[in-house]
Formats: sequence, structure tokens, C-alpha cells
Amino acid sequence: MNFKMVLSVLGKAMLIEATLLMLPLLVGVYFGENTYLCFLIPMAGLFAVGTPLSLLKSGDNSIYAKEGFIIVSLCWVVLSVIGSLPFIISGEIEGFSNALFETVSGFTTTGASALISVEGMSKSVMFWRILTHWLGGMGVLVFILAILPSAGAGLMYVFRAESPGPSSGKLVGKMRYTAQILYGIYVVMTFLEAILLLIGGMNLYDAVLNAFSTAGTGGFGIHDGSIAYYDNVYFEMVIAAFMFLFGINFNIFYLILTGNVLKALKSEELIVYVVMIVGASIVIALNILYTMESITNFWQAMRYSFFQVNTVTSTTGFSTADFAEWPELSRAILLFLTVIGASGGSTGGGLKVARMCILARSAQANIRRMIYPRSVVAVKFEGKTLSRETERGVLTYFILYVFIVCLCTVLLSCDAFGNVFDNFSATLACISNVGPGVTKLIGPMGSYAGYSWISKIILSIVMLAGRLEIFPMLMLFVPRVWKKG
Amino acid sequence: MNFKMVLSVLGKAMLIEATLLMLPLLVGVYFGENTYLCFLIPMAGLFAVGTPLSLLKSGDNSIYAKEGFIIVSLCWVVLSVIGSLPFIISGEIEGFSNALFETVSGFTTTGASALISVEGMSKSVMFWRILTHWLGGMGVLVFILAILPSAGAGLMYVFRAESPGPSSGKLVGKMRYTAQILYGIYVVMTFLEAILLLIGGMNLYDAVLNAFSTAGTGGFGIHDGSIAYYDNVYFEMVIAAFMFLFGINFNIFYLILTGNVLKALKSEELIVYVVMIVGASIVIALNILYTMESITNFWQAMRYSFFQVNTVTSTTGFSTADFAEWPELSRAILLFLTVIGASGGSTGGGLKVARMCILARSAQANIRRMIYPRSVVAVKFEGKTLSRETERGVLTYFILYVFIVCLCTVLLSCDAFGNVFDNFSATLACISNVGPGVTKLIGPMGSYAGYSWISKIILSIVMLAGRLEIFPMLMLFVPRVWKKG
Repeated sequence: MNFKMVLSVLGKAMLIEATLLMLPLLVGVYFGENTYLCFLIPMAGLFAVGTPLSLLKSGDNSIYAKEGFIIVSLCWVVLSVIGSLPFIISGEIEGFSNALFETVSGFTTTGASALISVEGMSKSVMFWRILTHWLGGMGVLVFILAILPSAGAGLMYVFRAESPGPSSGKLVGKMRYTAQILYGIYVVMTFLEAILLLIGGMNLYDAVLNAFSTAGTGGFGIHDGSIAYYDNVYFEMVIAAFMFLFGINFNIFYLILTGNVLKALKSEELIVYVVMIVGASIVIALNILYTMESITNFWQAMRYSFFQVNTVTSTTGFSTADFAEWPELSRAILLFLTVIGASGGSTGGGLKVARMCILARSAQANIRRMIYPRSVVAVKFEGKTLSRETERGVLTYFILYVFIVCLCTVLLSCDAFGNVFDNFSATLACISNVGPGVTKLIGPMGSYAGYSWISKIILSIVMLAGRLEIFPMLMLFVPRVWKKG
Repeated sequence: MNFKMVLSVLGKAMLIEATLLMLPLLVGVYFGENTYLCFLIPMAGLFAVGTPLSLLKSGDNSIYAKEGFIIVSLCWVVLSVIGSLPFIISGEIEGFSNALFETVSGFTTTGASALISVEGMSKSVMFWRILTHWLGGMGVLVFILAILPSAGAGLMYVFRAESPGPSSGKLVGKMRYTAQILYGIYVVMTFLEAILLLIGGMNLYDAVLNAFSTAGTGGFGIHDGSIAYYDNVYFEMVIAAFMFLFGINFNIFYLILTGNVLKALKSEELIVYVVMIVGASIVIALNILYTMESITNFWQAMRYSFFQVNTVTSTTGFSTADFAEWPELSRAILLFLTVIGASGGSTGGGLKVARMCILARSAQANIRRMIYPRSVVAVKFEGKTLSRETERGVLTYFILYVFIVCLCTVLLSCDAFGNVFDNFSATLACISNVGPGVTKLIGPMGSYAGYSWISKIILSIVMLAGRLEIFPMLMLFVPRVWKKG
């Protein structure tokens, strides 16, 4: 482990967080709020610790997968802990575990809230709360671009093919160019959404914050009742459309920008993602149309169903209806869409559509091998034969995912709050970074507030594990990784 | 596909079922019941169809994996359909779907019942109902011995090592010797359990039937209230001990019989199985002791907890308490023990302890490969390096298992009975061949009676898929497998 290098990157990340805390500070000044200390104190701390760390010089500047994993986990944990200070200092969230839960939920773009009501929150603190989503989304983009490929998790296959770069573990500056493009797409799309919301008559503050929340596929609501608060079809459709877009693999946009529209549209992952959303929306619309008295026609049903399906597949977690009260078929579909989540290479969470496709292909190939023991069967995805490392990486990820879900459900069941199925749904909603679950207690109108502080810490770890694709978090607990050298 | 061979084996299986129907017939005669037609009619049909089929001669006598899979699936389906006739003809189970559900539940040794009360059932029909469990258990033994190894599912590794036999897909008579030993163990252990129950004062009829039910790890109760009916600690401990034993890999008994006691006790699977049961029993005992008023001391808690843990891990499904009413931690543990199930090479169901170990080892190996990309890491289990086929087989099994659980939960959620979590628990209880779930509706005191006939057919298919380890059932739906030649 190259400690100096790791600490130096952590220091730089702290300086970035300190700089970004200026934004809610300015919002507070603009609205004349007395919240400046909430931001100045953590800023001072970040500058004081971050500056010397960032100046650490390491003789060896190469980062291997190991270091990459540790940097990412450490950054997310440290920035979350410090990021919770504005909530604590302002007193707008009571208790350290609640504030930490909220901040981790923010940075991991989960959107699960430990608050029962958000209406009393000051504008500047709320700005910071939502900004964490947007920053989390940006962090994920670096992460999937720079760290994951070296782990053979293989979800950025297109980029890897376009920019040969490092293949055996060394990460170098070559990534900078593609990173700039990714951030460009991210910022432009956020901007576009805010503009479209403004055009529809939303005020600037709400438009920017909802755009931030959508872009990171976060889902914190600015108002109690989330997007249902506005009761406006135009807003709902704009947000649903952008949730859909932010759940797409960013490679697709890259391909379209570089003129490869046909190649982009042929993406297997994109096709599965679209078919999944359209199919689930229609089935749920019909299901709620025929079982709920409050829904009187197909288009009203589609309005609710399309929004909720996109909120779950993109793992955003906004709501326009209390889907925990929906009929069982709809809840079952939403529960398992939570598991699948968004596309690889997007800001969304979950197992990812690409991984599901690879799992299906891998199973299919093995069944073929069983029927024709002597034939050679390759596992293909997106027109390319998958390497054994990629296939193995995905299979291992799946095993760990299921294991964590089971373990976390059991641990949460020690809590007096919620039954085993509330806990199961909460775990899925947190590991997939969706936020609300499909039971009343922790659904769109419920809250995680009732869980004990231990459960909130466990759920925070699970959110981080889901966001960082498990492996980096795991590395923190492998003693050998910490060995010097 | 060698059709003549497949049909000839099916014919022989039908003749065996016809012969076995003599047993409940004799029970009926002994108790002076008017049920002889219920058994004579299916017997006549089985003889009429089975005899010509069994006489079919195929030029090629070799059975490959493909044929083995199809034979097994076909036998289980056909014997279940005909096996349901005694229930229908006697009128003791109303409706074809209920009778079929009960018979499939019997032959797959699941023990999920569509009946609300069994007290009114005649002794002969009840005998047949429980006998299906015992026969199902025997069927599983042939199946795991003769069919699975050729599919590389690799759970009979010890036997394979002892008897080199067929390795590339051909099944020959060499298996006969080991099959005889397995059946010997099975019959002797059933006999022992019946004797021990008789010694405790249980009547002969109940003792034999409970022994049948335990041996097959089935779980149909002879009385409403299952084993709680007797309210007898001795009976409970005898049955719990035999559930534990029938959940052990039969190789272990084979090794002990052949003097390799030390090798047997060193089995990783056995150690994990024992640790899992002891650990879960203690945690659940403490959990119910401290939360339930009706439980006053640790030994009373252990009495309930040890019995229920064994009933779930062995996938039997007997009950001495309504664990659906237990605290959440206990329910969560029982829910996930349902998934794990018994040891490979036993009459129990579930994913199997061996598979869980292999999944854990495989994940561990891949994480090592990620940290040390240049090192060579082998996946070992029971002291042997696993072949790629075995590892792949287990991974594919796991993917298919999770997929079927999700799909079945969604399909059951179209039913008006039960919510999404009842359906989830029901699916797990059926695919793992446990029987009762952890929710009130389908728990030990509940019943599957409320599900529609479509849901009962779906659950029947899932029970078969679980019992036959998924692959054989899958083969039925692959058109190419049915190609002649």
C-alpha cells in the first residue's frame, strides 16, 4: 500500500469538499440565513487537515487497483463524516447517527431519509443536502471510469475499447480526456433539466435542486411528499425523462456525440433497459388501473406507473404516489426492479442491467455446455466475447450482493422497528441506492427515522457498499491490503 | 434423444408405483376402510400403460446426461399426476389442482399442504400421502447418485472418487453397488426412527408414518398441529435428531460404515452444517427467550428452537411451534436457513450447504485474484481443487435459483391471496422443499389452500424444480434436447 499517495489524494478530495461548501454558504447569505457557521467550521477543518495531506509527495506515482479501491472507500467515508457537520451544527438534524445516515444517503445518491419532515429545514442546509447527491453522482463517474476497469468489473467495456489505456492495473492520466467528456455530459444534462423545469414554472431554487437530485439519481425530496408536492404532470414527465436518461450508460451518450448513433442504439444493455422500463410500466399501469378505485383511466395509471418505474430502475427514489400501498403485483415488480437497478456506467445503482445480462448469458452458456459437453461455448455481451476475469467479477459480485442482503436483513431484524420484510425491503433499497422501500414503514411516505442508531450505521455501510460496487469496501477489511509496499 | 430408452425407464417406474400402491391398499383392508377402488384404479392404469412401455427395447442402452435429466423430470411429473388419483377418487382432497399440489409436495418431500385440516382423512389415503415422502426421498437418492454427477454438479464428490465409474456422461451398472448401500442406510435409519418412536409409546401407524416423513425430509403432518399434537419432548428430540441425520450427506455414513470415521468427521460440509445448526439454535433460543412471554427458561427455548432449526435446515417442515409468530430475528434466520437447506447428497433440499461453501470459496478466490492479479488461485473444497465445470455448475445453479425465486414471487403476486412477502416466503419454502413459510398465512399453522389453482400449479413446478436441482426441469423446455438421435 502506497500510503503517501492514498493520503495525498484524500487531502485533495478534502480541499474540493471545502471549496464546495462555499456554495451552500453563499445560498445562506443570499437568503439571509444565519447558517454561515455550519459551513465555515467544517471548511476550516477540511482546509487545515486537507492542505498538508495534499502536499504529501510519494516517490512512486502509480496507483494500482488496490490503492484505487482504498482511496475511493476512504474518500466516501471521510467526506460523509465531515459532510454531516452542517446538519449537526445547525441542529437541523438531531443526533450524529441521523446526520451521518442522511449524508451517506446523500453522497451515495440513495435518498433514504431519516427525517420525518423536511419542511422546516433552512434553504442553505437543504441546498447542501441535495448538493451531496450531485457530487455523489460526479464521484461515481470518476470511480466507474478510473477505478473499476482495473478490477475487471468490466462495465465500461466500450470506453476501454476506445481508449486502450491501462489494462493490467496501472491508472494513468490518459483517462483525463474521457473524464472531461463524462463531466461535460453530466453538467449539460443537469442544466437542461433545470431549464425545462424553469420553463414549466418551477422556481429557480427548486428547479436547480431537483435537477441535482435527478442527475445523481439521488431522490431526496425538497418537500414532504417528494414530487407529488407539485402535483404537476409536466414536472413529473420532465423528471421521469431525466431519471430515465441518467440511468443510461454514459457510453451511449459518448457514442452518440461522436456520431456512432447506430452503434449506440444497438447496445444490448440499452435495449434491455428500455424494454424493462416500458414492460414494467405497462404491467403496473394495468395492475393499478384494475385494482385501485382512485385511478380511473389508463393514462392516469401510466402517469404514476411510468414515474415510479423510472424512479426505481434509475435508483433515484422520488415519488408521486405511495407505491407501498399499491397492489401486490406492482410491489413485487418494483421490489425486483430495485435489485436490477440502472445501466452500468450511469449514476444509478443496483446490480446493473449489464451485470444481469452477463449473469443470464453465463448461465445460458453453462446450460449449453451441459447439453453439449464437447462443444466450445463463449459468453458474449455487446458483441464481444467476455474475458474470464469479467465473467468471474460479475459472478462474485452477485454472490457478495446476495450475501450482504441476507446478512443485513438478519442484522436489522435485531431492531424493534419493522418486521423481517420491512428490513429486507430496506436493505434492497439501500444497497441499490434507491431509497424508499415497498413497505409502508420505509416506503415513499414512511421514513428510516424509526431505526436505532446501530441499524442506521449498518444501513449506511450497506449504502456505501452498494454505491462503491462492494469490492472497494471489502478491501478496507482485508489486512493484507494495508501492508506497506 | 433416445426416446425408446426414456419411455422404457418411465414404464418401469410406473410399474414400481403400481406395486407400491398395494401398501396403502393393504392398510385400507387392515383398517376395514372402503378405499380399495382409490388404489386399484390407478394401479390398473399404471400396469396397463407401464407394461408395454417397459418392454420397449432400444438398440443403444447408454444413457447420457440429457436422457438422465429427461427421465428424472418425466418420472417425477407422471408419477405425481397418477399419484394424485387416490386423493381425487376418494374425494378426500377436493379439486385436481389441490390433489396434484399435495402429491407433488409429497414426492418432492416438500410437505407444503393445500389442506386446512387432515383429521378427517382415512388411514389408507393418509398412508399414501406420507408414503410419497418416503418414495420421493428414495428417488432423490438415485437421482443424486446416478444423474447429477454426469452434469458436473459435483455434490457427490466423495462417491465419485471412491467409485471412478463414468466420468464423461455415460451411466452404467457400476452404480448399482453404491445405490444398494445408500438404500440400505435409508431403510435402516427409517426403521430405527420408527422403533425409537414406538419405544416412546407412539402407536405403530403414527411411528411408521412419522419415520417415513422424516426420512424423506418431507414434513406432512399426520395430525393438525404437526408434531406439536403429541406435546412430547421425547418424540420431538427423536424426530429432531433424525431430521438432523437425514440432512447429512449420505457419503458421511458410507465413510463411517467403511471405517473412515476420521475422514468423515473432517468433512468441511459436515462441520459447516453442524456449526450452522448449533449457532442458529442458540441465537433463536435466546431471541425467543427474551421476547416471548410464553417461554420461561432456556431449555424450553432450546427445545423449540433446536426442533425448528432442524426442521428448516433439513427442509422437513414439521413444527412444534408457530414460528411465524416468533420475533423478527428468528424469522429472518429461519427464512435464510430455508435458502441454504441441507447437505448435498442427503434427502433434504435447498441450495445445499456444499453449494454455499463452494460459492463462498469461489468469491474468496476471485477477491484474492483481484488483490494479487498475477497469482494463481485455486478453488478448493473438501481438500480437492474444484474443476471449472463444478464451479461453473454451482454458479449457474445459484443464478437460476435466484431468478426462479424472483419470477415465482412476481407470478404469485397476481393472486389475491397473500402479499408480496407471503409469496416470497412461500416461494422459498417450496423451491427449498421445506413446506411452511415464515409468515402467518403460509406458516406452520397456515395453509396453501387459499392460493388459486394457477398459483398451485406454479408452486408445484417450483417444488419440482427445487427437488430436481433445476437443470432437469429446464431441459424439458429446451427444444433441441427432444431431437431424435
